Amino acid sequence: MNAMGKGRLEAFSDGVIAIIITIMVLEIKVPHGTQWRDLLPLLPVFLSYVLSFVYVGIYWSNHHHMLHTVQHVTGRILLANLHLLFWLSLLPFATGWMGENHFVVLPSVLYGMVLLACAGAYWMLQKAIIHAHGPDSTLARAVGKDRKGWLSLILYMLAIPLNFSWPRVALGIYVLVALMWFIPDRRIERSFAWLDKPHSGEKDQP
Amino acid sequence: MNAMGKGRLEAFSDGVIAIIITIMVLEIKVPHGTQWRDLLPLLPVFLSYVLSFVYVGIYWSNHHHMLHTVQHVTGRILLANLHLLFWLSLLPFATGWMGENHFVVLPSVLYGMVLLACAGAYWMLQKAIIHAHGPDSTLARAVGKDRKGWLSLILYMLAIPLNFSWPRVALGIYVLVALMWFIPDRRIERSFAWLDKPHSGEKDQP
Amino acid sequence: MNAMGKGRLEAFSDGVIAIIITIMVLEIKVPHGTQWRDLLPLLPVFLSYVLSFVYVGIYWSNHHHMLHTVQHVTGRILLANLHLLFWLSLLPFATGWMGENHFVVLPSVLYGMVLLACAGAYWMLQKAIIHAHGPDSTLARAVGKDRKGWLSLILYMLAIPLNFSWPRVALGIYVLVALMWFIPDRRIERSFAWLDKPHSGEKDQP
Amino acid sequence: MNAMGKGRLEAFSDGVIAIIITIMVLEIKVPHGTQWRDLLPLLPVFLSYVLSFVYVGIYWSNHHHMLHTVQHVTGRILLANLHLLFWLSLLPFATGWMGENHFVVLPSVLYGMVLLACAGAYWMLQKAIIHAHGPDSTLARAVGKDRKGWLSLILYMLAIPLNFSWPRVALGIYVLVALMWFIPDRRIERSFAWLDKPHSGEKDQP
Repeated sequence: MNAMGKGRLEAFSDGVIAIIITIMVLEIKVPHGTQWRDLLPLLPVFLSYVLSFVYVGIYWSNHHHMLHTVQHVTGRILLANLHLLFWLSLLPFATGWMGENHFVVLPSVLYGMVLLACAGAYWMLQKAIIHAHGPDSTLARAVGKDRKGWLSLILYMLAIPLNFSWPRVALGIYVLVALMWFIPDRRIERSFAWLDKPHSGEKDQP
Repeated sequence: MNAMGKGRLEAFSDGVIAIIITIMVLEIKVPHGTQWRDLLPLLPVFLSYVLSFVYVGIYWSNHHHMLHTVQHVTGRILLANLHLLFWLSLLPFATGWMGENHFVVLPSVLYGMVLLACAGAYWMLQKAIIHAHGPDSTLARAVGKDRKGWLSLILYMLAIPLNFSWPRVALGIYVLVALMWFIPDRRIERSFAWLDKPHSGEKDQP
Repeated sequence: MNAMGKGRLEAFSDGVIAIIITIMVLEIKVPHGTQWRDLLPLLPVFLSYVLSFVYVGIYWSNHHHMLHTVQHVTGRILLANLHLLFWLSLLPFATGWMGENHFVVLPSVLYGMVLLACAGAYWMLQKAIIHAHGPDSTLARAVGKDRKGWLSLILYMLAIPLNFSWPRVALGIYVLVALMWFIPDRRIERSFAWLDKPHSGEKDQP
Repeated sequence: MNAMGKGRLEAFSDGVIAIIITIMVLEIKVPHGTQWRDLLPLLPVFLSYVLSFVYVGIYWSNHHHMLHTVQHVTGRILLANLHLLFWLSLLPFATGWMGENHFVVLPSVLYGMVLLACAGAYWMLQKAIIHAHGPDSTLARAVGKDRKGWLSLILYMLAIPLNFSWPRVALGIYVLVALMWFIPDRRIERSFAWLDKPHSGEKDQP
């Protein structure tokens, strides 16, 4: 019965995340010309699509790992999950605005704010799951002090105001946080070991 | 065999609801300017998106709880479910029309009518499930007199004509009904207890 | 292993059908005015949406019943299923063209041709499943002489040319075929009994 | 636990592929006129839709076969799968650009490059799965020397520059590779036997 509840929670989240990751590509509008130079204005749109694809992909992958540890689904987990999906659903809009305007200040600020909200919502979902399963649960032990999670939040909060003075640095931080989660561990060897190990309930959060 | 049927019913409903909740975000069109004031005209579109996201989220969550209690899927349940999905599928249109026109009278009336039709279709699906499982079924007992369901229907019917004289009150009622289902119980403690309890087949309907 | 294959076949079909049924609603473009008369031009678009929603809903429901009887998935079944999804995926286009042009001749002819192609593809999928499971399989016995299937094909073939002389009659036939499958049996009592019976692997095809 | 992980991997991939295959149809824009000649300019868009539908369908079907052989999901498999989905997600854009411009040189070159990237990503996913399951795994034995996979890569690399001198030949090669995977074996009899056999974990890659 609870497994069922979890199954649908996963299926619904998979559906929403799959749609989010795919409709972002609709922002790359088919150009009218047929020369390479007609594709050139699409480059920033394409790059912001790549960045957001990586982010949504990491979220899906980590959501997948985290839900793995869930034994029973509570109402609070349901709400926290919908809350996360809400902020993720704003990524296509933020990506489109940033990409079409070649990474100018305010769209990049908004993009950072949506990333920050997503990270916060992920953190709340993590809290809700730990709350339901106790401090000795797999997730609670895997998360530990959650240094990577806090570091991401701090980096986003640094990057958002940096857009006003050094926009390229801010953008670099967005990329850095993505990479930080993409390469799941600092020590490369352990990282590669992780890559080839069947995944357990370890914690990952962008 | 029946569990299978239920599985596909849930999967298909999850798919349709996931798409409905996500395509609504496509109504928030990327603006051409790059100033905060260029986002301002999007505020009503955004707010109506939030309201509809909450509504669709509640419907998904309650649909999830209600389907939990289903033991076997009949043809009548299939049809009633498709009927509910039909009305939910009109929410993106009604949301877009209301949001782009800053909550003026007729679009808000239509929005209320779609909400009313969704609530009615949900009620019919509930009837179909109870009809198939008997008056002693989990759902029948959980629904009881269905005060919250009837109250929602009455509130929608009140709000729709109120749009002509006090549009803000009507809009407030739409928000109120959403909140009424969002906070699943009046008594906060019981509500929070529910939030942390593995969900059973209790009845919830927006 | 085969159950797995069937599970993914169903999941993929559910996904595609869920998207087809939902993107059709995107053809109902949000109008610029805020009066009832601004909705009036949308009426034929809305009616063709309703008709196509019913058709896709029936296809999903019958696909669901038919796949129920599948014991093992062969390559031919996979291809026949993709072929059916291809024709179903053209319904949103045909619906939009017919609806936006108020049911004039040629768009209605095309709509009928897509319906005919869908029915033909469904028939081929049915053949592929029976071929894989033998003449004594549940599906083969349930289909029998497949009178309803052949009747639909003949009615579509009648309706398509009728568009040139009596377009309303042709449209009426499209509605009639939908109703014929919607009300699953001629004898009302038996029909209602079916509605309340857990569904078995009986055959249904629009 | 691992089966679960695989289940979500399949569900997410199914969702993304289902959306990719369906949003391509949105490129076939509803024409304003109501004559057959108004459909004529849509013919190349339609043909490129058919080609891409077949490609995505083959990818889904082969992905389905390949995932069948997976016993446990590693981080590397997750990443390789997301990488494949990324390139597949660019097919609707490449299809639209090629179709709207009646198969002129550069859009056809880009289309070929996206096909090449998809085939490369598929090959990397295959490598990741074999790496996780060892050289004696079902997949490793089924793939063998992977002649068909290498032949496809070589044909794409031939076709891309051919667009500049003999665009029709290049297009013909794209169609040929699709057919080569569509008809799963050279010897027709064996091919038809395969069509009617429950599928095992045999290797297929476009």
